[in-house]
Amino acid sequence: MNSLKQGWFSELDTSLWPGQCFSLQCDELLYHQRSKYQDVLVFNNKVFGNVLVLDGRIQCTEFDEHSYQEMIAFLPLNAHPNPEKVLIIGGGDGGVAREVAKHPSVKQVVQCEIDEDVVKVSKLYLPGMAKGFDNEKLHLHIGDGFEFLKNHQNEFDVIITDSSDPEGPAESLFQDSFYELMKNALRPNGIVCCQGETFWLFRDLIHKIVSFAGNIFPSVSYAQTQIPTYPTGCIGFVLCSLEQNKKLSEPVHVFDEKTVKEMELKYYNSDIHKASFVMPTSFQQTLDNSSPNYRR
Amino acid sequence: MNSLKQGWFSELDTSLWPGQCFSLQCDELLYHQRSKYQDVLVFNNKVFGNVLVLDGRIQCTEFDEHSYQEMIAFLPLNAHPNPEKVLIIGGGDGGVAREVAKHPSVKQVVQCEIDEDVVKVSKLYLPGMAKGFDNEKLHLHIGDGFEFLKNHQNEFDVIITDSSDPEGPAESLFQDSFYELMKNALRPNGIVCCQGETFWLFRDLIHKIVSFAGNIFPSVSYAQTQIPTYPTGCIGFVLCSLEQNKKLSEPVHVFDEKTVKEMELKYYNSDIHKASFVMPTSFQQTLDNSSPNYRR
Repeated sequence: MNSLKQGWFSELDTSLWPGQCFSLQCDELLYHQRSKYQDVLVFNNKVFGNVLVLDGRIQCTEFDEHSYQEMIAFLPLNAHPNPEKVLIIGGGDGGVAREVAKHPSVKQVVQCEIDEDVVKVSKLYLPGMAKGFDNEKLHLHIGDGFEFLKNHQNEFDVIITDSSDPEGPAESLFQDSFYELMKNALRPNGIVCCQGETFWLFRDLIHKIVSFAGNIFPSVSYAQTQIPTYPTGCIGFVLCSLEQNKKLSEPVHVFDEKTVKEMELKYYNSDIHKASFVMPTSFQQTLDNSSPNYRR
Repeated sequence: MNSLKQGWFSELDTSLWPGQCFSLQCDELLYHQRSKYQDVLVFNNKVFGNVLVLDGRIQCTEFDEHSYQEMIAFLPLNAHPNPEKVLIIGGGDGGVAREVAKHPSVKQVVQCEIDEDVVKVSKLYLPGMAKGFDNEKLHLHIGDGFEFLKNHQNEFDVIITDSSDPEGPAESLFQDSFYELMKNALRPNGIVCCQGETFWLFRDLIHKIVSFAGNIFPSVSYAQTQIPTYPTGCIGFVLCSLEQNKKLSEPVHVFDEKTVKEMELKYYNSDIHKASFVMPTSFQQTLDNSSPNYRR
């Protein structure tokens, strides 16, 4: 594993985030093997809990995973009038499934994860996330999300793509052909929400994705959440809707404080739903210039 | 300097942020000396530009300093009906002064920075920030902010405390006695805005500060901004007002897009002003429980 110093895991990546490096102390090495698709590492850090790393990049820590999982799930679910059937692509740790299954409207969740080993390892070392796999609403399919979509049309209300970064097994999930396939797999008024990187490092990529997504979908938007253990401390989401002029930043379902408590939401609430679409001035200009179908 | 690996600067701090460490490649060492108060380091990173480090903690990089400087300046300035005279405590790099002086209402800026060496070094290596010192509205005073306030009453519309972390020369700026002094130095309807750490790591400290600030001021609130090179990728601000029931999250001055462009604001805008006061659920509960004078 990459390490600037013995006993530490270091997220060195001269291609995706040159010049900087976040490190976590590795207090106990729990698992390190190569799967069919990628290098899979789990270690424990006394402050951050157990940490899952794929191909040298931090995927989640027990300390802050909730902000990502809750936001990628409830932004699209609460922007949809009645999300009954949901597809999750990726999300092998089970955290997104855990959140999606909580939603009162959701009746059925299908998940397509390419790497069975990630699921197995998460069940062993990230039980707080992997409990998502135990939900009776969930059907887990091991396979390639891109191929899976080719055989599913007009089937889902919401599709959530919880992918790793665009270098590695998830590369195809950042292409326009993938967005075309998602569009065809949606029912009327369907919504997609995809991991959309951080504007501090990937402004050009985000501009490209929002631009082609705006050619494919009548409405596209972009939101973000804080997540301290990802590069730059935040990550974004590309959201698309089959509805014309859809304001994805406006939740159709507003969770009151009692609901938020019952659902054990530590990050998401209806105010943060709206606030997460508000962008800094210069990045807002990038988005405004991306597509006529982009809506704040 | 701390380094997990030769040629890198590593922000190791087992006291303030144990178990994690952010590193920046040190492509050129520009300055490293001990001032009267602290260890002062400047280096260049090809991606992040010049980086100022005090006592081993990153204060600013040319890459992302704008988000901090713009937000700590315009949150209080735009929540105030007519901010004419402003005091900056700390802010030795000049970036806050640069932003404050841009505000159309501001006639006079007084700055009190304890460490003359930080000002000198910033003029040499961070000219984009230090140009704040050239503004004719500014009067710079070298001295202790705490002592300075004892001799100034009923004088300022806005006080901005741009301090380093609560261990080191800035320790006294996180105490209730400092908030009392700021209150006495304000004119009627005055507002203060202080660097308020990140809730991901300093929840108890923030709860304590907002609680005592709510005993001292009739209105207190908390906002935050993204800043990739600070621990957890974000930092907060404690804002207090002498007005009863003051909604600091609502800008009194709304900058239109033309004004934002003319003022060269890359991060701040009126929408992000409001959004920056919206907090994740569990931290919102911490704030709601801090003081009856806390207002979202």
